[in-house]
Amino acid sequence: MAAFDTLRWRDGRLELLDQRALPAAANYVGCDSARAVAEGIRDMVVRGAPAIGCAAAYGVALEAGRLRASTFPDLAAALEAAHGLLAASRPTAVNLSWALARMRGRQAALGACAPGVLADELLAEAHRIREEDERLNHVLGAHGAALIPDGARILTHCNAGALATAGHGTALGVIRSAVAAGKAVSVYADETRPFLQGARLTAWELAQDGIPVTVIVDAAAGHLMSRGEIDVVIVGADRVAANGDVANKIGTYPLAVLARRHGLPFYVACPLSSVDPAIGRGADIPIEERLGDEVTGHDGVRWAPAGVGARNPVFDVTPAALVSALITERGVTHAPDRARMRSLLESGRAAAPVRASSPRSPRSPRR
Amino acid sequence: MAAFDTLRWRDGRLELLDQRALPAAANYVGCDSARAVAEGIRDMVVRGAPAIGCAAAYGVALEAGRLRASTFPDLAAALEAAHGLLAASRPTAVNLSWALARMRGRQAALGACAPGVLADELLAEAHRIREEDERLNHVLGAHGAALIPDGARILTHCNAGALATAGHGTALGVIRSAVAAGKAVSVYADETRPFLQGARLTAWELAQDGIPVTVIVDAAAGHLMSRGEIDVVIVGADRVAANGDVANKIGTYPLAVLARRHGLPFYVACPLSSVDPAIGRGADIPIEERLGDEVTGHDGVRWAPAGVGARNPVFDVTPAALVSALITERGVTHAPDRARMRSLLESGRAAAPVRASSPRSPRSPRR
Repeated sequence: MAAFDTLRWRDGRLELLDQRALPAAANYVGCDSARAVAEGIRDMVVRGAPAIGCAAAYGVALEAGRLRASTFPDLAAALEAAHGLLAASRPTAVNLSWALARMRGRQAALGACAPGVLADELLAEAHRIREEDERLNHVLGAHGAALIPDGARILTHCNAGALATAGHGTALGVIRSAVAAGKAVSVYADETRPFLQGARLTAWELAQDGIPVTVIVDAAAGHLMSRGEIDVVIVGADRVAANGDVANKIGTYPLAVLARRHGLPFYVACPLSSVDPAIGRGADIPIEERLGDEVTGHDGVRWAPAGVGARNPVFDVTPAALVSALITERGVTHAPDRARMRSLLESGRAAAPVRASSPRSPRSPRR
Repeated sequence: MAAFDTLRWRDGRLELLDQRALPAAANYVGCDSARAVAEGIRDMVVRGAPAIGCAAAYGVALEAGRLRASTFPDLAAALEAAHGLLAASRPTAVNLSWALARMRGRQAALGACAPGVLADELLAEAHRIREEDERLNHVLGAHGAALIPDGARILTHCNAGALATAGHGTALGVIRSAVAAGKAVSVYADETRPFLQGARLTAWELAQDGIPVTVIVDAAAGHLMSRGEIDVVIVGADRVAANGDVANKIGTYPLAVLARRHGLPFYVACPLSSVDPAIGRGADIPIEERLGDEVTGHDGVRWAPAGVGARNPVFDVTPAALVSALITERGVTHAPDRARMRSLLESGRAAAPVRASSPRSPRSPRR
């Protein structure tokens, strides 16, 4: 159990742990409207695909609460506007639109009810989304932990931890569950430029849990693999296409290419809310490009020369063929491809964990 | 012609352009002893394999100048100590020991002469090493320029420019020569964590020359390649083994792996003084690991949590099989391997450029 809340409901509003200030300070930013939540997502007060899904759900609930004394048509119009604002806040993580669709579904099921009832019910749905996310992370963590050898030296990228979710984490959830199962592991955290989610957030989370963590620059992963110092690579996902291609933080794709070259397993851990069956392949996933000033410096300090520009794509796409296994709340899907992804999605929430596919043996294993 | 001197001899001492402060300030640090030069190399006031070779040569010359009024035995002993200090300053770039061997050879050729004569001759040799380095960069730049297509979008890593050499540069020398030959190019500069040689130094150099440059985080190269936005990758080298394996700035090896995957040429540009025939293969090249505090923050600002450590290997090894061509002052060696490296080294300084080998066609070209 992490010693912090990534997002929490307190005194009638949403509080977001300000991830821009971590680890120097652990401050909460209060949000009392959909607009404030959308800004918090866009400005990366909160980040991580599942966490921004939860935040967006609360954004809708906040809007309903703000207008609980108005008329139903006014409230419905305001909710439409809130959905638009929140959906546009960041483009790549599909959990955002997944959570908004859940909220819209709940609203539709309630029909033209009293505004106060709608507000209460939408808040309850946001709470459920948050609670489910944390619970599913424990489930997928247990599935993934079985893949982690005792003594493993694990490389991870960005932050797919409690800070990226409602709690426990996806990639870091697997690591936490492996540790809880008695395995000794050590973690290399890519610093993850430009926002430094690895050096700042993953290192902070794991150190609090007493899990050994060492920061490296993103460019050092290949060297460590070539020297036989990495056993497993595990990352989260912002969106998984119907064919198993994975959009995740910029730098994930090079890690997958290197892992394959060195015969290392490359695992992706995420809830099914990160899978987008409407996107056929990774090349069709929208890739956010943020402002160049995140690249030309950090935290107000500029180190590139004045007048020099930067490109800042913040996600990349890893082809499914490079993914050893996808770890979800329904189990481990080895060697994901279009057919196995369809089976996974059709296996239903009540079904047993999917373990049908056989492990793919990495090509040309070598160190 | 770059508008600055990476290192210059002024008023009887060596002045090093302080590369830690660039691009915010262009200050020169004066060195009047071998110890000061060794510290300047270790602390990265000066960096880049050819540049630290030149600096080390001046370090020996400074020591001889300091003791020009002493006895020959005293001077010889001091020069021995200076060689030891300078040789130990950084381990990976072979130009350092190459330049020290040149200085030692000149000293041996002079024999037991008057200390003042020895001092004058060693300074003259240091000047020659510096002048030769700049001249050879123009020669190798012209060879390499022929490989650069008009309109090429070129990716480079770290700084293999005028700042890494006595002038013109190796990888950036090829780019400058291509521009001088009338080719329109644009450059993506990897920021090159942790020391940010790309964002700070390469961007500064190229912007001064009016060559279009865009900074990206190191982890973004794979994404740009996958989207067909890179045509050529070119880097420098800190040491090339006898079989053509290349030690260069951390992050070079992943670029070579990605370039091969995407069917892009991966070129290495360096003078022959960076080739070490005594090292059989890349795995035997000593890889410097620097202090972790270069990784956990930058320029006095720490962003990783207190108590969390870092690994900081600052070079990696690219296997020769991933190098499309090695560009030296003797020409272009396509698909370098042990035999072609031997031919290159035996081809002699007066020989025609080596163009014997045929281009290696990249495996599985795709974007």
